Amino acid sequence: MPAPLAFHFDFISPYGYFASLRIEALAARRGRTVDWRPILLGVSVLKVMGLKPLLDTPLKGDYVRRDVLRHARRAGIRLGRDLNAPIGNPLPAARAFCWVKQHHPGLQAEMAHALYRAIWAEGRELSTPDALATISLPAGLAPAAVAEAAAGEEAARLLRDAVAASIEAGIFGSPTVVVDGEPFWGLDRLPDVEEWLRVGGW
Amino acid sequence: MPAPLAFHFDFISPYGYFASLRIEALAARRGRTVDWRPILLGVSVLKVMGLKPLLDTPLKGDYVRRDVLRHARRAGIRLGRDLNAPIGNPLPAARAFCWVKQHHPGLQAEMAHALYRAIWAEGRELSTPDALATISLPAGLAPAAVAEAAAGEEAARLLRDAVAASIEAGIFGSPTVVVDGEPFWGLDRLPDVEEWLRVGGW
Repeated sequence: MPAPLAFHFDFISPYGYFASLRIEALAARRGRTVDWRPILLGVSVLKVMGLKPLLDTPLKGDYVRRDVLRHARRAGIRLGRDLNAPIGNPLPAARAFCWVKQHHPGLQAEMAHALYRAIWAEGRELSTPDALATISLPAGLAPAAVAEAAAGEEAARLLRDAVAASIEAGIFGSPTVVVDGEPFWGLDRLPDVEEWLRVGGW
Repeated sequence: MPAPLAFHFDFISPYGYFASLRIEALAARRGRTVDWRPILLGVSVLKVMGLKPLLDTPLKGDYVRRDVLRHARRAGIRLGRDLNAPIGNPLPAARAFCWVKQHHPGLQAEMAHALYRAIWAEGRELSTPDALATISLPAGLAPAAVAEAAAGEEAARLLRDAVAASIEAGIFGSPTVVVDGEPFWGLDRLPDVEEWLRVGGW
């Protein structure tokens, strides 16, 4: 059985959201599955790389806002969020995701989609654990249990470990897909991921 | 007559080099020409955006080195430069280009290719005006005249004006193609540029 594609993403990343909508179909076309791996751009970009948040970077921020809307328009994806509004605290969503992945691994994809959809399609504010209990969660997850888990130490530790592992692996951006050890950063590279899978590298 | 594609590039940018090899054919397929517009990443990235040089950025630098070699391998482009070696002072090449564009506008594409080829295919060091006289220049350009121009005040002023105009236009990365007012940043976006030209936008 070939290894899953490692899909690294941050819930605050619109390009990660766009890629999350395509990665499973891409993997399935080549007989692969997806391992969903949360990262924190606040750690990789701000602390390790010493850069600024993308949307707060002069020149680039304006371009990215334009580009995100342009991509959504072309792909027919509804964005329910004002790109100029602060995205809020990414920790509760990422921690809840890690907890679900740990305790309900079969629901990890559904959980990632639920959180991305709430943030990007519905424009929800998920800055607190309690907010997680108010979104549409995968069947089989009790909202109160998810909120409690997101506030707990286990979820915090799982996320810390996941983020440390991603930095150790050199992952810095969202989305990044690693296929058989080969990293591809950026939504634009999904076609390259598929081609790499098809021909076995170059 | 439709407007030329504005091709913004820095000679120190490997992705700009890769794109420079494709932009004219792309434009020609849609009945366009190319206006070659030098930028300086040392101004946009370092001064205006407050970021670091790409290859000196933790995590990203390693990825980019790997990605540049991977792209060159796939596209069959020979790279004659060690990506870990300093690229040198970009000003003489950019100034010489501006002077040629001003005084021999019909040679601008050939001059861009000559400089890119010297730096990236041949691994030449073009940090001084005199070095420019030692590379293979377009027919019709006297090497000594190019070197003298690159050291002169007119070329410096032309480049300053070009860079100021690019910043004013929000251009920050190499390559960036602007088609009828719509900017596309990155080598990966050349297919989008072509699609935009084909369908007239989205």
